[in-house]
Amino acid sequence: MNNVRMDNLSWVEYERRVQSGAVVFLPIGATEQHGPHLPLGTDALLASAISEDVAREIHGIVAPALAYGYKSQPKCGGGQHFCGTTSVDGATLIAMVRDAVREFHRHGVKRLVLVIGHYENQWFVTEGIDLALRDIGPDAGLQVMRLEHWEFLQPQTIERIFPDGFPGIALEHAAVIETSMMLHYHPQLVALDRIPAHGPAEFPVYDLYPTRTEWVPASGVLSSALGASAQKGQWLVGDVIGGIVQAVRFEFALGEV
Amino acid sequence: MNNVRMDNLSWVEYERRVQSGAVVFLPIGATEQHGPHLPLGTDALLASAISEDVAREIHGIVAPALAYGYKSQPKCGGGQHFCGTTSVDGATLIAMVRDAVREFHRHGVKRLVLVIGHYENQWFVTEGIDLALRDIGPDAGLQVMRLEHWEFLQPQTIERIFPDGFPGIALEHAAVIETSMMLHYHPQLVALDRIPAHGPAEFPVYDLYPTRTEWVPASGVLSSALGASAQKGQWLVGDVIGGIVQAVRFEFALGEV
Amino acid sequence: MNNVRMDNLSWVEYERRVQSGAVVFLPIGATEQHGPHLPLGTDALLASAISEDVAREIHGIVAPALAYGYKSQPKCGGGQHFCGTTSVDGATLIAMVRDAVREFHRHGVKRLVLVIGHYENQWFVTEGIDLALRDIGPDAGLQVMRLEHWEFLQPQTIERIFPDGFPGIALEHAAVIETSMMLHYHPQLVALDRIPAHGPAEFPVYDLYPTRTEWVPASGVLSSALGASAQKGQWLVGDVIGGIVQAVRFEFALGEV
Amino acid sequence: MNNVRMDNLSWVEYERRVQSGAVVFLPIGATEQHGPHLPLGTDALLASAISEDVAREIHGIVAPALAYGYKSQPKCGGGQHFCGTTSVDGATLIAMVRDAVREFHRHGVKRLVLVIGHYENQWFVTEGIDLALRDIGPDAGLQVMRLEHWEFLQPQTIERIFPDGFPGIALEHAAVIETSMMLHYHPQLVALDRIPAHGPAEFPVYDLYPTRTEWVPASGVLSSALGASAQKGQWLVGDVIGGIVQAVRFEFALGEV
Amino acid sequence: MNNVRMDNLSWVEYERRVQSGAVVFLPIGATEQHGPHLPLGTDALLASAISEDVAREIHGIVAPALAYGYKSQPKCGGGQHFCGTTSVDGATLIAMVRDAVREFHRHGVKRLVLVIGHYENQWFVTEGIDLALRDIGPDAGLQVMRLEHWEFLQPQTIERIFPDGFPGIALEHAAVIETSMMLHYHPQLVALDRIPAHGPAEFPVYDLYPTRTEWVPASGVLSSALGASAQKGQWLVGDVIGGIVQAVRFEFALGEV
Amino acid sequence: MNNVRMDNLSWVEYERRVQSGAVVFLPIGATEQHGPHLPLGTDALLASAISEDVAREIHGIVAPALAYGYKSQPKCGGGQHFCGTTSVDGATLIAMVRDAVREFHRHGVKRLVLVIGHYENQWFVTEGIDLALRDIGPDAGLQVMRLEHWEFLQPQTIERIFPDGFPGIALEHAAVIETSMMLHYHPQLVALDRIPAHGPAEFPVYDLYPTRTEWVPASGVLSSALGASAQKGQWLVGDVIGGIVQAVRFEFALGEV
Repeated sequence: MNNVRMDNLSWVEYERRVQSGAVVFLPIGATEQHGPHLPLGTDALLASAISEDVAREIHGIVAPALAYGYKSQPKCGGGQHFCGTTSVDGATLIAMVRDAVREFHRHGVKRLVLVIGHYENQWFVTEGIDLALRDIGPDAGLQVMRLEHWEFLQPQTIERIFPDGFPGIALEHAAVIETSMMLHYHPQLVALDRIPAHGPAEFPVYDLYPTRTEWVPASGVLSSALGASAQKGQWLVGDVIGGIVQAVRFEFALGEV
Repeated sequence: MNNVRMDNLSWVEYERRVQSGAVVFLPIGATEQHGPHLPLGTDALLASAISEDVAREIHGIVAPALAYGYKSQPKCGGGQHFCGTTSVDGATLIAMVRDAVREFHRHGVKRLVLVIGHYENQWFVTEGIDLALRDIGPDAGLQVMRLEHWEFLQPQTIERIFPDGFPGIALEHAAVIETSMMLHYHPQLVALDRIPAHGPAEFPVYDLYPTRTEWVPASGVLSSALGASAQKGQWLVGDVIGGIVQAVRFEFALGEV
Repeated sequence: MNNVRMDNLSWVEYERRVQSGAVVFLPIGATEQHGPHLPLGTDALLASAISEDVAREIHGIVAPALAYGYKSQPKCGGGQHFCGTTSVDGATLIAMVRDAVREFHRHGVKRLVLVIGHYENQWFVTEGIDLALRDIGPDAGLQVMRLEHWEFLQPQTIERIFPDGFPGIALEHAAVIETSMMLHYHPQLVALDRIPAHGPAEFPVYDLYPTRTEWVPASGVLSSALGASAQKGQWLVGDVIGGIVQAVRFEFALGEV
Repeated sequence: MNNVRMDNLSWVEYERRVQSGAVVFLPIGATEQHGPHLPLGTDALLASAISEDVAREIHGIVAPALAYGYKSQPKCGGGQHFCGTTSVDGATLIAMVRDAVREFHRHGVKRLVLVIGHYENQWFVTEGIDLALRDIGPDAGLQVMRLEHWEFLQPQTIERIFPDGFPGIALEHAAVIETSMMLHYHPQLVALDRIPAHGPAEFPVYDLYPTRTEWVPASGVLSSALGASAQKGQWLVGDVIGGIVQAVRFEFALGEV
Repeated sequence: MNNVRMDNLSWVEYERRVQSGAVVFLPIGATEQHGPHLPLGTDALLASAISEDVAREIHGIVAPALAYGYKSQPKCGGGQHFCGTTSVDGATLIAMVRDAVREFHRHGVKRLVLVIGHYENQWFVTEGIDLALRDIGPDAGLQVMRLEHWEFLQPQTIERIFPDGFPGIALEHAAVIETSMMLHYHPQLVALDRIPAHGPAEFPVYDLYPTRTEWVPASGVLSSALGASAQKGQWLVGDVIGGIVQAVRFEFALGEV
Repeated sequence: MNNVRMDNLSWVEYERRVQSGAVVFLPIGATEQHGPHLPLGTDALLASAISEDVAREIHGIVAPALAYGYKSQPKCGGGQHFCGTTSVDGATLIAMVRDAVREFHRHGVKRLVLVIGHYENQWFVTEGIDLALRDIGPDAGLQVMRLEHWEFLQPQTIERIFPDGFPGIALEHAAVIETSMMLHYHPQLVALDRIPAHGPAEFPVYDLYPTRTEWVPASGVLSSALGASAQKGQWLVGDVIGGIVQAVRFEFALGEV
């Protein structure tokens, strides 16, 4: 039994922990193409693994991930024309988050962290939180943190991993960072020999609809994952775990637990 | 790597299998109290495990479960007053299913099975399917099967397990059937020593709102799980797996694969 | 003037009765095929007639029926492919019930009974009630009972009517029970000579979409109504009326009025 | 059996008539205060009765009325502060109409008439029709007529009934016209001795929210119904029936049937 | 700088004025064909200009207009088949108004006037207000006035402008009244030489869907604008400005400012 | 008359231009605090002015701006606690965009550009476009470009304006870039003497809800606008206009017009 996973706890144990002030984490991922070498579940798997690592350090609880995210966009996820990418409408994601936040509030949770693992989710998650807080009223006593885990990467780590220059987080879809993190957490799900070798995708500053699918490499990888390693994954995950633990402790005034 | 889990497959592998006619299974569970001895994730865990067993037999694929279900009702799940039960509005579940079905259709999936593991989900899932089929049009070529896994239990198995009479599926929340199935699939998540000993709940034929919480045992268990065993779980799961495999093969005209 | 029908009362009279504590009944039916021998309005007609009989016993008020219900399903109503069946989306029925409950609360109604006459309505009505109660807040003082009228049938009545065995309520669409009740309440609307003679429909335990219309008898009748009679209707209705009156008196602490 | 009422017909008979080109009428009323002398169901009762009279002349069919309408406004219905007035949100009425129109189209109905009996319904009904036609596509072959029955009153009839000047249709809520029509159709539901004697309400040209309830007579009657009679009702109804029959025959190219 | 336009004010200045009790005006127009001689923005331009004139007299503030209105209807705006007419669904307009009213309430606005410049908007705006007031609660202290500006025209002005008889406000789309008002406010946007000369459109008392476009003059003008002049515009606008100023002062108890 | 503004054109002229292939621009702004020195309408004013400049170069048409945007966030717009900021729910903005895109398609527009002037709008606009394209179908022939105007700024211009280093676009709310652009387009709306002198705001990488308003400078300015000038505005606007013109010509294959 993994005792930070909410779905592994009985309600009695969950209630006991919530009443003693446990922070609850909700990973919000996607089911989205991640090239020929990473699995469709990458975003949810990483957001869940990171949430569990953080939760273990601060006696938190990790709720079941939202496994379907907002529609993949060409510039950050390849786009909706890929087979396997399974996305929801904005209204659906907003509703899922709204309902979940409202329910955690009903449980008595005071400190909730939404851990986003899919770039496209951010604004719909934000709206879901806002609507839930409107529902429960201004004095409900629930504090919600929303974060994208890659935002906690340190500049020095990025420099160490990309000594020849960082192509930018926007192109890091199925590339070195995600692949390294997956090699750290789920090496058996990474097909190193299937990493495509092509250079980074180039996009204009605007978007066109219907999607210009020719802008996106056929592999779905936006910049190459060659050079990814479990060691780099460890460094990256270290930044993220450390950063989130610190943020949660600081903002939610948790002592060292 | 679990090669029936969609979230473990690359999009390239997923596409290959879909194009060769793989049946896709979508487990639809809940996060809901299941007494002091079963975990909150029971419904999603069972729907997923059953889906994976079926998929293994027919070269299918199991999509990530919907882990949050429709609101728990006193008579079949204990009700929404329990801490830990984390439910969504009807409209949210409808939207999730509608979006998911529409996406599987876009992938080229022709045969989709929605495996419900939470009694309260049924009608909202039905509506989600109906709206998705309306969206994609009458000649889209997608066939969807919707099932509740416990419906495949055989009368002789029920008699074998309940020689003194079956209290009815309605009261089988966190009771012998679910507990036995969990002992079969996830024994480490079952706290046998915490099974409450009280007799079955009794409900009138109508419902009252706001919920009469006094109708529901404080444990959340609707009839006792005493007597549950992994052996019984194996019998039960055997019925379900066998029944679904047969139904899918028959309706979707799959040869023996 | 039928002085239990809300639509026959002036607002002044209605207000007077509500203020003196009258229970309000809202019948929720359907417009749905009921074979060649029963009218399309059967579900709303029966729910209304039963509500009126109950209301007469306890000085209640019957609001105008919701005459359009959730989409007919093959196994319990024949399905949406029949001409004449006129159904609404789940969201529409939820909204109708939500608005209605909210309005009765505004009137000062304290005890409201939703009398369902169409199997498919149950879950959407439940959601409508839940959302209305969320709107009006937890301390609003409104109690809502939701019931399906056939749930009040007594086992001994079923045995008396089906001495050779009861095919089950699931197949009782346009069959002996509904036909007998209609012969009791609206004999002029029953075409006894058009009752089809075929045996009961057989369905698997799962559902398929698009609907396998070949599973459903072309008549729309799921098991034969032969043997229906006004006498049986009286017995059946007697159970239902008696049961509802007793339930309402008990739960809402009404003295004998 | 009333053979123009859809809820009295079997689906077989309904289908036969629809296939032979029958015009279907959907009355859309309200449950709304109509002063101390008229019942809450007035709008639905009149819309239904008129629809049935028209249908009888042209072999049409009358579907069950929508009995709950859009929120009552002070200037035309007294407003939402009256007990008994039971209204729905705009979105709910839109959805009801959208669903109903879509269903009649599925039945094969080619000519549908929405008969509005409640002033406040008009725009939401219009939107419901528009959305349904968007759903079914531009070449669906369904023609929909939307009408407010009082629009068919002839000037000479108005002059005959109001020789001292007509206060205007806006103030005709629960006044001479509606009361006379009810005396024609449902005299037993009219309490002539309870008609208030006060003069007409006066309203500014703008509206204020929250409603200035002091603008509305406490009786709910916007101008006096004194002088109403069954004879006048017959004249009024004659105009309406005649006008609708003529309009339907003309627009839908029905011969004299 | 136009110091009654909210979009020209800094938030600091806006806040200062709101706190000192300024009335806020929200013009609600449309983008709709107005014949060959008036611009598509006529409804929003007039509602804004009128709002600004009123605001100048009473130290009010004019918020940015809602420039897209509810769908144009044949009888009052020509209908949705015209190129250039750009309309929103009813739900969209309801939502816009609901959100805006809620926001003005958050600002501390106590007196809000919604100035409608497009006939078709009225009921959806009414619903938006109602839902916003439901959201903010009954004791929020916000008063909202909703008005259609043409309702403030005085009978004597109408007689002066239409000495041969007034065709009725219903046909005044892109006709003498609107054209004269535009000549008063925006003469450079009026192409007097392109005013069509045809007589007024004639409509039956009912509506048909899909729209009978042949009922509507091809020009989009429902009755001729010949005879329009800036002088008449000044008279008309004078009525409207004077009427609104008086109504606002009276209802909102403003002294002469 | 400004002959690129849609609201200044008659429908006849608009239709003529659309049929000859004119590109239509829809500015999407906000009503949002922009510090004590810029007006609340800044985002809509800039998006409109830029759109008009671009349209003039390529014979395009500018539709009326959407003047209300998605909710202001602390890190990019200061947040929703400011008076004057007037925002809409995500669903409302999605619906506005969906309806507008659908209508331009109906007009026969083939090339539509959505010009976003408010950072928070991006994802809801994206969803609105996606839903509209779903509505009109994959082969509708409409191409939509979505852009945020500041994305067209050239690195060398940024360096020229920020020789001591660029604080980043995220903090450029009511700062040098926006203020300079406003000095270029609307100098009379800029209160140079009210520019606050404080240094840039600092934010963590995560967000908290309810908003930590203490993170945001009380002025609403996220980094100082000191140093803004009309000259800089001209440079900035030059980049944007030039970039958009080039993008539109390139993607939409317009010759030099």
